[in-house]
Amino acid sequence: MAKTNSGRFFEDYSIGQVIRHAVPRTVSGGERALYHALYPARHALYSSDAFAQSCGLAESPIDDLAAFHVVFGKTVPDVSLNAVANLGYAEGRWLLPVYPGDTLRSESEVIGLKQNSNGKTGVVWVRTRGLNQRDQIVMDYVRWVMVRKSDLDAPAPDTTVPELKPVLEAGDLTIPEGLDFSGYDFTLAGEPHRWGDYEIGEKIDHVDGVTIEEAEHMMATRLWQNTAKVHFD
Amino acid sequence: MAKTNSGRFFEDYSIGQVIRHAVPRTVSGGERALYHALYPARHALYSSDAFAQSCGLAESPIDDLAAFHVVFGKTVPDVSLNAVANLGYAEGRWLLPVYPGDTLRSESEVIGLKQNSNGKTGVVWVRTRGLNQRDQIVMDYVRWVMVRKSDLDAPAPDTTVPELKPVLEAGDLTIPEGLDFSGYDFTLAGEPHRWGDYEIGEKIDHVDGVTIEEAEHMMATRLWQNTAKVHFD
Amino acid sequence: MAKTNSGRFFEDYSIGQVIRHAVPRTVSGGERALYHALYPARHALYSSDAFAQSCGLAESPIDDLAAFHVVFGKTVPDVSLNAVANLGYAEGRWLLPVYPGDTLRSESEVIGLKQNSNGKTGVVWVRTRGLNQRDQIVMDYVRWVMVRKSDLDAPAPDTTVPELKPVLEAGDLTIPEGLDFSGYDFTLAGEPHRWGDYEIGEKIDHVDGVTIEEAEHMMATRLWQNTAKVHFD
Repeated sequence: MAKTNSGRFFEDYSIGQVIRHAVPRTVSGGERALYHALYPARHALYSSDAFAQSCGLAESPIDDLAAFHVVFGKTVPDVSLNAVANLGYAEGRWLLPVYPGDTLRSESEVIGLKQNSNGKTGVVWVRTRGLNQRDQIVMDYVRWVMVRKSDLDAPAPDTTVPELKPVLEAGDLTIPEGLDFSGYDFTLAGEPHRWGDYEIGEKIDHVDGVTIEEAEHMMATRLWQNTAKVHFD
Repeated sequence: MAKTNSGRFFEDYSIGQVIRHAVPRTVSGGERALYHALYPARHALYSSDAFAQSCGLAESPIDDLAAFHVVFGKTVPDVSLNAVANLGYAEGRWLLPVYPGDTLRSESEVIGLKQNSNGKTGVVWVRTRGLNQRDQIVMDYVRWVMVRKSDLDAPAPDTTVPELKPVLEAGDLTIPEGLDFSGYDFTLAGEPHRWGDYEIGEKIDHVDGVTIEEAEHMMATRLWQNTAKVHFD
Repeated sequence: MAKTNSGRFFEDYSIGQVIRHAVPRTVSGGERALYHALYPARHALYSSDAFAQSCGLAESPIDDLAAFHVVFGKTVPDVSLNAVANLGYAEGRWLLPVYPGDTLRSESEVIGLKQNSNGKTGVVWVRTRGLNQRDQIVMDYVRWVMVRKSDLDAPAPDTTVPELKPVLEAGDLTIPEGLDFSGYDFTLAGEPHRWGDYEIGEKIDHVDGVTIEEAEHMMATRLWQNTAKVHFD
């Protein structure tokens, strides 16, 4: 019996299918420290318990993008192992802070399917939810990928292209319970600019760069338990 | 007074000698996150507190091989600093889970000695135990290495070759207290195959590879506080 | 409105000025594990809770140099972003252990200024304090750097060169409350040499080396949230 997960092909998806992704993960100060070592993260709220408490949170949450990487990584073996192209993301929302000690798992629902005219590939849309150990949704987002067919004779599914919002309304988003920026310490935050200091169309030159080597790429990919072949071959 | 540890040579070992190895270590979520970043680990039991609790454990233990690396690393300055060759391992057992917050230390007993016919080296067998902060043995294993003599005129010891089991019996192993796989979630585990799905002689092709660079090699070696020269020169 | 922090120039400093540095940080077992993975640290006191407790501490503190890196990194955007040269350090003291869960922030007071004769640069002396979440000073040190002027027409400040001790007295240092080495386990510590075994002028040959690559350099720099351009360009 072959022991290798060959991944899902285009004909293996159907509208409404819900996939529970494997390998739940408890995050700790270890994931935070590694995220900060691998990415140039400097947000005080995600760096300091004392700062987070002064903003009304119980303690400093894990960086939102670190939580995203954990949730996203789990979907790869089921969604994009046979992907030809990563096409897009939409309607992404962070709904609850993730704290050290929380356990994250992921689920995806197939919400769109469209076979390509070449008959060899198709586009799959999924809505992915990250859940914590209390089964609360901590984030969700839509992703679509182009996936190979394995059996070229498999019939094309009815085409379903989901209607996705070009932009989320403020009302679609949530604010963490208790979050209160009324006493926000701009000096400790290290960033004097506020909402009103930014304008549409403004170009910000992020000066200075940072060198990335294979070692960091591989460490991040493994840390997020992302098995996509494109990262390793 | 020379401050460098020149390590033990073959003539420095005697049967029954017990060596307490230095630098005990408390493991945390930091060691877990780094282990997962450096090795492609994806076992749900060692990744998720919630999953481990559903299997009857108090929380998710540190990966067994991470615990082994910690225990093993401590033995290097005393056992293999002057080793010519790492010859073998036997009778390795994990006896208790290691949890974040546990402190590990190592002890080795010399159980075998055999000088080689060239008179310049000999084989040393040790049984190493990893102990936690409650002095419980969390693992043990036998290892044998070929070690240089420093004083070639030192007399050869009586030859003692320990009898090692070619394979451990099920009765030699222990099952962690409370471990219960009766409600095991195979989907969350991400691995559908069970005991009965494997057969003797079966060949499993582990597809896909992963790039390793010096940076990861050095980080792992330092993390496990392994001082073997072969890793650094 | 430009969003980039261009850093302070020589004419922006004045004697007595106190700068509160941004991005406080809570340290955890994650920072410890990464410090041990990036640096060859093997001090039992900073590695094992059980060992630290046998020495009278509540648990194992974060390595002193790791705490220094955290405190120092925060000063870079305010002190040395436009530095031409890192000139010196003096009167450095670790005053309190830093434990996992502690939050560190940094403050610097300008204690010396001296414009160079070329009129283009000057030397700035600061005394930096690292503080924990209880506003206790956990370390302090003096540092001086040569900093560029931005406005060459800015008047030179009065020259103030602080008097720094060539060496700190024992009375300037503090011993952590409860620290007691009377039952110190030299075997577990892995280092048999004591105070009396070292003499002035003794040369110690630290044998063996370790390979450092860019990946480790970048990870350490990001982990300590150090934004100095010299590390990245």
